[in-house]
Amino acid sequence: MYVHTPTPSQKISDKSDSLTAPLRSAFFISDGTAITAETLGRSLLSQFGNVKFDIKVIPYVDTIELAHQAVMRINDAHRLSGLKPLVFDTIVSDEIRTIINAATATNLDIYEGLINRIATEINEIPNPHTGMAHGDVDSEDYKARIDAVHYALDNDDGARTNHYDGADIILVGLSRSGKTPTSLYLALQFGIRAANYPLTEDDLNTSNLPKVLQPYHHKLFGLTIDTERLVRIRQERKAGSRYASLAQCQEEQRAIQAIYTTQKIPNLNVSEMSVEEIATRILQMTGMTRRII
Amino acid sequence: MYVHTPTPSQKISDKSDSLTAPLRSAFFISDGTAITAETLGRSLLSQFGNVKFDIKVIPYVDTIELAHQAVMRINDAHRLSGLKPLVFDTIVSDEIRTIINAATATNLDIYEGLINRIATEINEIPNPHTGMAHGDVDSEDYKARIDAVHYALDNDDGARTNHYDGADIILVGLSRSGKTPTSLYLALQFGIRAANYPLTEDDLNTSNLPKVLQPYHHKLFGLTIDTERLVRIRQERKAGSRYASLAQCQEEQRAIQAIYTTQKIPNLNVSEMSVEEIATRILQMTGMTRRII
Repeated sequence: MYVHTPTPSQKISDKSDSLTAPLRSAFFISDGTAITAETLGRSLLSQFGNVKFDIKVIPYVDTIELAHQAVMRINDAHRLSGLKPLVFDTIVSDEIRTIINAATATNLDIYEGLINRIATEINEIPNPHTGMAHGDVDSEDYKARIDAVHYALDNDDGARTNHYDGADIILVGLSRSGKTPTSLYLALQFGIRAANYPLTEDDLNTSNLPKVLQPYHHKLFGLTIDTERLVRIRQERKAGSRYASLAQCQEEQRAIQAIYTTQKIPNLNVSEMSVEEIATRILQMTGMTRRII
Repeated sequence: MYVHTPTPSQKISDKSDSLTAPLRSAFFISDGTAITAETLGRSLLSQFGNVKFDIKVIPYVDTIELAHQAVMRINDAHRLSGLKPLVFDTIVSDEIRTIINAATATNLDIYEGLINRIATEINEIPNPHTGMAHGDVDSEDYKARIDAVHYALDNDDGARTNHYDGADIILVGLSRSGKTPTSLYLALQFGIRAANYPLTEDDLNTSNLPKVLQPYHHKLFGLTIDTERLVRIRQERKAGSRYASLAQCQEEQRAIQAIYTTQKIPNLNVSEMSVEEIATRILQMTGMTRRII
């Protein structure tokens, strides 16, 4: 998607039924990673739920030659589909932005207007540079993020339970309730050191916490998930097993809810949530401060 | 940062030297996770490298009451610092956005203008809804992302090397060259199944690839890192060890470069790159297609 420009068959524009109707292209373009342009662009396009777009991301457009290549791709998309592409760009260089703006597209220049408004308001001249959106790799904040990733990995799934002193949070929950992806997202995005510990059958047979967790009660946060969804996820993993059976999942759900209640562990039903949503809700509920400023 | 509003001491505004001068606040506000507002806001603020901001993220402002609370925080920040805060919001509800806009701040309403421009251009009425920016958790794309995270974890650091059939890419490199965070980022953000394999002393003593990697030559991608940086990172991990010595790192560097050259393995120097940049460059260099649309 990034490098190989598919060459749409000419047939596409000949057909007129809705199944093969050409899609409007949306380009996310930047002289950096294009992550900012893509994040905002997808978010805006999601407000038009009924429309499908042909999305193309073009990062690192940082030379005049690459800018002209991008313009050719935009113009080709226009010609082949007959629909004017949308272009979301976060290009810092005026020279390169001017070239991109000359494409036959609707240019939703994200930076241009906003940077000028900020400059006027704070009475500062912008100091344009590319690629700082994700931070300086020599900063303490960046190191904290990378350390947190290694921490999450070392403390995944109840491993190395002697390292919980260093945890900011310990996620608990049933097997396949979303603990691992959430721990890693908290680490990568927010620099939070998140361990996770699965409460398995042995742990659930008693309403006490497992011994290794007892000293860290204040760090525990529970994930819950609807039984039906849990069964489905486990079936995808181990179809037909007792582990994935409705009866087993129901029993584990009953037991873990009892632990959350008895032990007063804050918890969140994550059934309908993406990892982004789970992580953000956890920060909000716990008041945890992110390591990244 | 999300929940606890620090109450700045009144002394702050009494002092006038630059060290304790009040900072201008920047608020990232949304009725969803606020990830879009924050991503764009940070990116814009990074263009004013000489100015420090007091950043506050307020997600899930989805009721009138929460909107009024947010306004109070914005107005407090204004009153205490004497500087008009910048507010970056991606609020879908007109009613809530109107309340936020009434705060004494410079409101950089990100959605308002752009959504209308898109609507006009594509001749569609927007279908406003919150929280779709990160995708539907029941979609195949979302499942692919979560599967990729579990895959990256299971195949981290040369573990379970019999699972490489399912890899989209296998990152190789010296110990502590950034393979693990990159694998996880590729999985979480792009749904790419990335394994990683450290080339250690035993592997480096020969110019052949380790046997387990030989069938997957076409999937290999090498990370390289400047020797000085590698030494520093290893020293932070195991200070004074042979593993972290300049001589050892130099020898490993020489050996791995020989393997990359002999075996014609594409590779990237990641010394100055964040995980976001490394992942994006890898996609660009390999032409890999992301699993997420």
